[in-house]
Parts: sequence; structure tokens; C-alpha cells
Amino acid sequence: MCEVSLVVQKFGGSSVADADGVKRVAKRIVEYRKAGHDVVVVVSAMGDSTDDLIDLAKEVSPLPPARELDMLLTAGERISMAVLAMAIANLGYSAQSFTGSQAGVITDEAFGRARIIDVTPGRIQEAIDKGNIAIVAGFQGVSQNTKNITTLGRGGSDTTAVALAAALGADVCEIFSDVDGVFTADPRIVPTASQIGTISYAEMLELAASGAKILHLRAVEYARRYGVPIHVRSSFSPHPGTWVTDEPVPPEFADDVKKEAMEQAIISGVAHDRSEAKLTVVGVPDVPGKASEIFRIVASEEINIDMIVQNISTTQNGRTDISFTLPMSDGAKAMKALEAQRDNVGFEDLRYDDQIGKLSVVGAGMRSHPGVTATLFEALKDAKVNIEMISTSEIRISVVTRADALDDAVRAAHTAYDLDGSESEAIVYGGTGR
Amino acid sequence: MCEVSLVVQKFGGSSVADADGVKRVAKRIVEYRKAGHDVVVVVSAMGDSTDDLIDLAKEVSPLPPARELDMLLTAGERISMAVLAMAIANLGYSAQSFTGSQAGVITDEAFGRARIIDVTPGRIQEAIDKGNIAIVAGFQGVSQNTKNITTLGRGGSDTTAVALAAALGADVCEIFSDVDGVFTADPRIVPTASQIGTISYAEMLELAASGAKILHLRAVEYARRYGVPIHVRSSFSPHPGTWVTDEPVPPEFADDVKKEAMEQAIISGVAHDRSEAKLTVVGVPDVPGKASEIFRIVASEEINIDMIVQNISTTQNGRTDISFTLPMSDGAKAMKALEAQRDNVGFEDLRYDDQIGKLSVVGAGMRSHPGVTATLFEALKDAKVNIEMISTSEIRISVVTRADALDDAVRAAHTAYDLDGSESEAIVYGGTGR
Repeated sequence: MCEVSLVVQKFGGSSVADADGVKRVAKRIVEYRKAGHDVVVVVSAMGDSTDDLIDLAKEVSPLPPARELDMLLTAGERISMAVLAMAIANLGYSAQSFTGSQAGVITDEAFGRARIIDVTPGRIQEAIDKGNIAIVAGFQGVSQNTKNITTLGRGGSDTTAVALAAALGADVCEIFSDVDGVFTADPRIVPTASQIGTISYAEMLELAASGAKILHLRAVEYARRYGVPIHVRSSFSPHPGTWVTDEPVPPEFADDVKKEAMEQAIISGVAHDRSEAKLTVVGVPDVPGKASEIFRIVASEEINIDMIVQNISTTQNGRTDISFTLPMSDGAKAMKALEAQRDNVGFEDLRYDDQIGKLSVVGAGMRSHPGVTATLFEALKDAKVNIEMISTSEIRISVVTRADALDDAVRAAHTAYDLDGSESEAIVYGGTGR
Repeated sequence: MCEVSLVVQKFGGSSVADADGVKRVAKRIVEYRKAGHDVVVVVSAMGDSTDDLIDLAKEVSPLPPARELDMLLTAGERISMAVLAMAIANLGYSAQSFTGSQAGVITDEAFGRARIIDVTPGRIQEAIDKGNIAIVAGFQGVSQNTKNITTLGRGGSDTTAVALAAALGADVCEIFSDVDGVFTADPRIVPTASQIGTISYAEMLELAASGAKILHLRAVEYARRYGVPIHVRSSFSPHPGTWVTDEPVPPEFADDVKKEAMEQAIISGVAHDRSEAKLTVVGVPDVPGKASEIFRIVASEEINIDMIVQNISTTQNGRTDISFTLPMSDGAKAMKALEAQRDNVGFEDLRYDDQIGKLSVVGAGMRSHPGVTATLFEALKDAKVNIEMISTSEIRISVVTRADALDDAVRAAHTAYDLDGSESEAIVYGGTGR
């Protein structure tokens, strides 16, 4: 560490679940300060406290107004940030806490899922310049025109951290959670999965979009746009985690990078997702414009669809089937919206299947290795896993299988791409909601 | 109710202790809105939640930084105000919650006991003008220059309500608690105590300063300065409470005033206080300036002293004793500070007595009735209560007794001034901390 670096560190709710957790995190932060870094900390609400607040809201109102729900939920981070600042002060270091609004996190006014419009971290910069550790509430901001308090929705705290790191020109944004980093597969399914040392933004985006819950898509997108290196690591262990960056890791953090084989594997990781369902629109008139009619109905409900397959007309009457996958949580809404338009569109039936799983293999190396798809299909065939849908991007192949075949599929793919390492420690591979 | 009035209503923590309490308060607020009033509500933190936050702070730090403690504690009102706004919305009325900062409560930067410097309620006025019910967090503000979050300390929520009422030109500031109003004495001690219908600011100030906990001195002072009528009443009952004002109650609230005898009693009420102790400095050299030395030492510890008695020199050696009363909670601090200066001041000993009680009778009528003091002394003599110290103001007489004689003294005084009414309902006479 040759010069003063600015580090933004984000700690999730599981890291600050109780007073002991807060004290442990405070020690960790102070170690960085002692090592000469300037430190800005973004913190989530303690443990399950956000859920407790939501329960309280439901006790007084089945459908709380969005503005008030955001006002309520931001109390969670207000508590954790103040308590963390106290714990740091108790270790002899000066810390000041700031709400999202005070930290200059300016958003639009979409309560519950606000987007960051601008970050004006003047007060944070001032606090650092005075030698303080700045603690910032994650997940929250203030709307640009009306000055109402907003929350950022899923992945909000990670996004706050990355956005602050970008605005402050931080050297790294460290995301602490209860797992050691990004793995080549979920170790609960593949015991031989190993931790990835460094991964590109594009690969991390594909993994996040394919079901890996460790980092939120939104935060990774923000980091890529502003070139912020992310270091995903465990708050329970001192080991290096996974770096998400397209550049070499800055030399002052060399000790914090996992040693890896010189040659990059073709596939970086295998992700899986059990949260999607398949909806099939049966007997759609095979005339131009019908597919777009269907997807416009779904889109108007603000439902994001993922994979799409249009079967080749197999019947004699000029009709076809269109299948797509969507979040299971939107299934009922999509069915209802389509059913209401059955006569207009002219389809014959709707079928809903929530017993599916999705497997994705991601790797920048597949661009230059043409056999990657064939390897996957052979491995799945040998494992007797049937493929129901396929979609690909430049660096990803995804297939839909039966839900109960998904674990076998993940293991088969992991082995087929030579990702198996030694049996890794039993690490819980999961993620936090925000 | 001939025209639209603006009512500021304050609900304490006991009124919104849980979801049911919040819903009950919401209904009460909506009734006012239905009756055509514009309503601004000031709310305290729910039940014991502030104590819970203080406990959490102590878990991580024995002496939390004041700025962070204020940041932490303001989460309590943030929760109650948002939940109350939700409960009102659920009844079909539009409500918006505002933090102290958003409501324009500008303070100095004395964390934990900030003073209000200015109130700029532009956003509140706007919310009312749009037909909304505005819910404001009590007990909190924002510092003028540094924009830090502050809390107002004891009596803070009452003071927030009165300050907002003054700034908005409200017709009345209603302070809701768990008691029906101000009584002629504590009904737990004097079962025949009756509720006062109307009382002047000066009398209420004397009662509050003499131990009546229902309204905080600070809020009454603020109300008198700006001429804000206060209506103290119960959130659990529809009955009229006690009006604190020097003017007639506005005609639109005529139904909300307790009927009283035409002739005003000489004494409005009897207050008592068990929270003080007596400190005696023994053997002080009886030379000019010694008393001021002693009180400067106590004042430098920011301790407020109440009654003072300097004995006439009784010994031969030109020394005297000085006794004063002070809050019991400051006793140890005062003893320590004085002990440290024993040689400088030249006194012989310190004696500390926390087994005292203070009785005060308050009434504007005593100005024109010279026999009031004699009546008290006779009553106490008949009740065999010994008087240890005496102090008077224009409308108050206070005496110090033994702690275990205080209840008898209160009852004797209450009877002597003809305040006994019929046995009142068993109402808990107490107050909230903020």
C-alpha cells in the first residue's frame, strides 16, 4: 500500500444482524483505517428488521401508500448506520453517519424501486477529508424535485455502494456478505465448485442474470458503466474474495487477490435458477404480428420475460405454439392478462408450468471456442437430462430442464468444462434481498 | 364550527404503543378531518421503542457520540409517523409524513437537548393546502448551519407541536396523552381531585415547574410567548380536557370546554415533586461572596437549583449553613464538584438528603388574597407536617417536607383550599418523557 486509497465497503444485513455483528464489522472497518485507507461504509438494515417494519405496516394497512412505506423502511438503515458509527467511535476512531439524502443519493420518485439519477457526495467527501469514516445508509435516496424519501428496491444497497464509489472516484467497492465470493457453481449443489479470483463485468452480469444471487445485476451494470472495480468477499473471513473488473486489480490490493491458474478457463461458471416458470400460448394463428400482440400484453403488465421459443407450425390449421419463461411471481398476473385477451388474439389455450429449472454456463472464452455448446449438450445427454428450451448470448448458453433434473444438469456441466476443483469448504451460497 | 380551523394534535408514545393504538389514533384524527378541520399531527415514537434504541446503543458503546445517538433515536418517530400516515390512508384520507427536518424545525446543534431556533413549515402548509393531513415527527429537528439531525430532549414532542402551531397560526394545539387533563392534584394521592377546565399560562408554568408532569414547562413557555392555546386531553376518551390559555377559548371549540363554576377558585391546583434532594453546605464562612462561590461551582456543572435557604449564623465562629434543593439525578455530580472545592471555599462539611418532598400550591387568585400562605401553614400544622424550607413566587407557595409526609401534606392543602370535589374516576396521572 504505497499511497492512500479510498475504499467503499458495503455490509449487508446478515453482517450487522445484532450488536455483536455490528462490533465485528466495526473492527474490520477500523483495520482498513489503520492500514491508511480512507473508508466510506454503506450499510443495510440490521438482520430482519426491514421485514419487521413491513409486518408492522401490514398490521395497519393492507396496501400502504408507497411514499409512506419508503419513509418507514428507511428507518432500518438509519438505525444500523448510527449504531455502526457508535461502535467505531468506541474503538477510538471518528465516524459520522449519513442518510441517503445527506449523502447526495438523488433518485427519481418511483417509490419502492427508485433509480439513482445523480450522486452529489459533498458531505461525504468533506467527512473523509476531515479524517472521519463516513457511514452511509444503503438502499435509500431522496427524489430530485419533490425531496421525498425513496428506497431503491432489490439490490439497492449494493447499488448505493457502487454509485458512491463511482462518484467519489474510489479505488475499489468491496461488497461484504456471508459468502467468500463468486463460485464456479453453487457449492451446495456442486461440492467441488471453486471460488473465482477475477471475473469480467460481462460475465458477472450474465451470471447475475442467470440466477447467481451474490451480486445484483443492477450494481454490476452500474460498476461496468463507471469502471468501478468490485471486490465481493465475506465479512466472516479475511480471505480474498472475487474481483469483478475488466482491468488488472490495482497493485496496492495485490495481497487481496486469490492466486489462480495462469490460463483462463473457457467457462467461468455455471449458474442455475429455480425462480422461473414457463407459459405456453397454444394454437396461436400463424400470421404476422401475433407474437408481438402477445408480448405487448405481457409487457403492459410490467413483466420481464426471459427465454422465448416459437414452435414451427406442426398442425394442419395454420396455428403455432409460443412458449416463454417469466418470473414465477408474475405467473398469475400474466395468465390473467392473456386470458382476458384470448378472443382478440385468437389463441386456443394457455398452459402454465412452474416445474422447470434453468441452467446457464457463462464464459468469455466461449467466443473463441466453437465446441462449447456441443460439450454442454453431450454432458446433459450423458446425464439423461432432457433440454426443453435453449437460448444463447455471446458468452452464455442457457437451457431449460425439468426442475428435478436441474441439480444433475449443473453437476454434469461443471464437470464437462473441467471446473471441478478439490472439495471446497461448505459455504452457504446465497444472497441478501437488498 | 363556523369556519375551517387549523388544529395541531400531538399524540404521545403511549397513545401509539402498538398497531391497535395507531389505528385508534388514526380514527380520532380522521374525525377531526371529517368535521372540517385542517389537521397537522405531531407524533412521538411508539411505546418503549426509544428505550429499545437506547439499549441497542449501549450494547455497542458505553458512551455513544451525541450526534449518532440523535441520528439513531430519530428513527423512532420516523417509524410511528409513517405507520400513522398508512393507517389514516387506510381510512380513505390522504396523509403525508414529514421528518422534523422536512417540517422545517430548525434547531441549534446541542445534540440530545437542541433548542428550536426557527420553524419554516412551508412543506406542511403546502400539504394542508392540498387537503392532506400532515404527520410530523416530534422531538427532532435539523441544525441550522451543519444540517445535522438533532433531538430536542425532554418535552421535545410537546414543544414541536406548540412550535408548529405557532408557525402555522393554528387555532389550537391539542396535546393528547393517557390522562384526561390537568387536575387540582394528583388523583392517585387525592381521590377527590377534579379536572381543571381552563388555566392560565402562568399558573400552568408554575404547576409544571412544581412537579405536575402532564405538560412540559418548555412547551408551556413556548405557547405563552406565541399565544398558542393548548388543549390537554386524553386520547382514550372523548371528554373535554384542560385548556391552557389567557384568552377565552375560541367559540368554535365551545363544545370542547368543561363546564366550570363561574367563580374562580383562589388556588388552581396543588402539585408535588419527589424528584428533588436537599444539599446542605455546613459551616460556610459568613463573609460576602461565599454563597455566590458555591452556586457558581454548582452552575458550572449545568445543574439547576430550585429552593435556597441560608440560615442565620447560629454558631459563635462566624459561620453559616446554606441549603438548596436540586434534581436528585444531579446529586452525586454536585457533591463531587463541591467536595473538590472544599478548601478553596472553606466550608466544613456537606450533607445530602434525598428523603424530601416538595409541595406547591399555585393560583393566580393568591395575588389578591393575602391569607393564602397562612391557610397553608395552618393546614400543614393540623396535619402534623413539618415545614423544612419555603419559597414563594407571585402565584405560588412551595414548601419542603419529609418525603413520607408529602401525601398527607398534599391532601391537607387540597382540602384547606376547598378544592375537594366528588371522588373522581381512577385516572392515572402521569406523563411521558418526551
